[in-house]
Amino acid sequence: MARQEEYTPPKVWTWDAENGGEWAKLNRPIAGATHDKELPVGDHPFQLYSLATPNGVKVTLLFEELLEAGYSDAEYDAWLIKIGDGDQFGSGFVELNPNSKIPALLDRSGPEPVRVFESVAIMMHLAEKFDAFLGPAKARPELLSWLMWQMGSAPFLGGGFGHFYAYAPYPMEYPINRYAMETKRQMDVLDKHLAENEWMVGGEYTIADMAIAPWYGRLALGGAYNAGEFLSVHEYKNVIAWAERIEARPGAKRGKMVNRTFGEPHEQLHERHSAEDFATKTQDKIG
Amino acid sequence: MARQEEYTPPKVWTWDAENGGEWAKLNRPIAGATHDKELPVGDHPFQLYSLATPNGVKVTLLFEELLEAGYSDAEYDAWLIKIGDGDQFGSGFVELNPNSKIPALLDRSGPEPVRVFESVAIMMHLAEKFDAFLGPAKARPELLSWLMWQMGSAPFLGGGFGHFYAYAPYPMEYPINRYAMETKRQMDVLDKHLAENEWMVGGEYTIADMAIAPWYGRLALGGAYNAGEFLSVHEYKNVIAWAERIEARPGAKRGKMVNRTFGEPHEQLHERHSAEDFATKTQDKIG
Repeated sequence: MARQEEYTPPKVWTWDAENGGEWAKLNRPIAGATHDKELPVGDHPFQLYSLATPNGVKVTLLFEELLEAGYSDAEYDAWLIKIGDGDQFGSGFVELNPNSKIPALLDRSGPEPVRVFESVAIMMHLAEKFDAFLGPAKARPELLSWLMWQMGSAPFLGGGFGHFYAYAPYPMEYPINRYAMETKRQMDVLDKHLAENEWMVGGEYTIADMAIAPWYGRLALGGAYNAGEFLSVHEYKNVIAWAERIEARPGAKRGKMVNRTFGEPHEQLHERHSAEDFATKTQDKIG
Repeated sequence: MARQEEYTPPKVWTWDAENGGEWAKLNRPIAGATHDKELPVGDHPFQLYSLATPNGVKVTLLFEELLEAGYSDAEYDAWLIKIGDGDQFGSGFVELNPNSKIPALLDRSGPEPVRVFESVAIMMHLAEKFDAFLGPAKARPELLSWLMWQMGSAPFLGGGFGHFYAYAPYPMEYPINRYAMETKRQMDVLDKHLAENEWMVGGEYTIADMAIAPWYGRLALGGAYNAGEFLSVHEYKNVIAWAERIEARPGAKRGKMVNRTFGEPHEQLHERHSAEDFATKTQDKIG
């Protein structure tokens, strides 16, 4: 085992802004806006302010599946929130989400505009509004269980394992071990469930699949933190097969592109305002 | 800053069961049952298998509020799951919750028994069944947002700050700083919201309050990880006042006692099978 740090916590914690690793300037011990900035607003009923992190992708997967399924009232504008630039601390964004995290939604489809924040809250809000991708009614307890499983588990994958394996300023043995073990346990929970179920809930593709895949499907396919070998993700054959079933869906192919700022140029649609925006990107690839 | 550890992650992570701190024997990189053990079943429609951690208390707060409000169909048996003894890896528990975490619910109130796992899934399931503690219908987007905020945030408080401050085998500066900052930010999000709202959502006491208070209210009142001074929780005056409003509720007083295995003897009701179980405990205190 590596040598222990020589550290005794102080009686009272104080903020050392210099000592937070790669994301230090984005993480603060206080909430609220740091600057005045209104959000842009487009023509559609739904205004999404996001970025194609796993939490952001959840929502664009759902929007594109709704549109694919013919719910034309699900048209949306997707605006890019550059968290590296601190857009999430602008006054307009903080009004939508006092927690300053993407994604956030402004829903103007009803009599009064309403805000929704947190990825799964947005998914439940939209799925309930359109009565779609919720699975059979009798499977609702199972739907709720797996949605909440995702919300409570992914912070150990993203905020825990991903942070300490890929982003922390130096490798720390104990945190990496802690979160690698928990991430593998979570993957095994999924793998055992998907050994006996084509989809997470009720035999249908639901928002539970769309919530879980951007975190765990992506990891299974080797696309997260360059950690596929480290976590032996090849062991999770059922998660891999399920993730591939999802990736093959037209809605998922589009949903992944929205608000994306990494990868090949033809994979990146920084803002989405109409279905035609995707066609332009496909031409980029051909051209 | 303390000296850095000398550590290079291996190419492939392997399980070192000896190296996991106080909770090592409870944390495994694989899912599923370790032993055959059926769960006990009582007379009531709802069978809860839990422990009075913050996640467990959420559900007993709700059950006791439902009963307090006159929903007599919400009678429940609360069974103790000793996570220190590995009860969560028994075959009966894993059938109810393949994730092996408390709380888990068996609902026998409908035509077929159903399982529900994850604390907020259980709360939503019960609140929707009784149509209670959901707040006004038009506040549903806000209810969903704050419920999901709790689910996604508390892992940074409990699994992050609490673990590294109170349970890890030795103090590590970087993780303690990381999670102290995030915990303070989350407390400030709440404090600013509660400065302008008596309750979290819609002007009413809802499951959002019941979900958030066991984590953040408890911390504000100095009852978590002995970290009140370290995190300067006295700063969060609105969280403190809100937590005290909740603690004064008869349902909350009872809910906190259920499946509790720490504190004074009169505060501990290891199992709950009827309202009279609390009266016995009150007599303990007087006697």
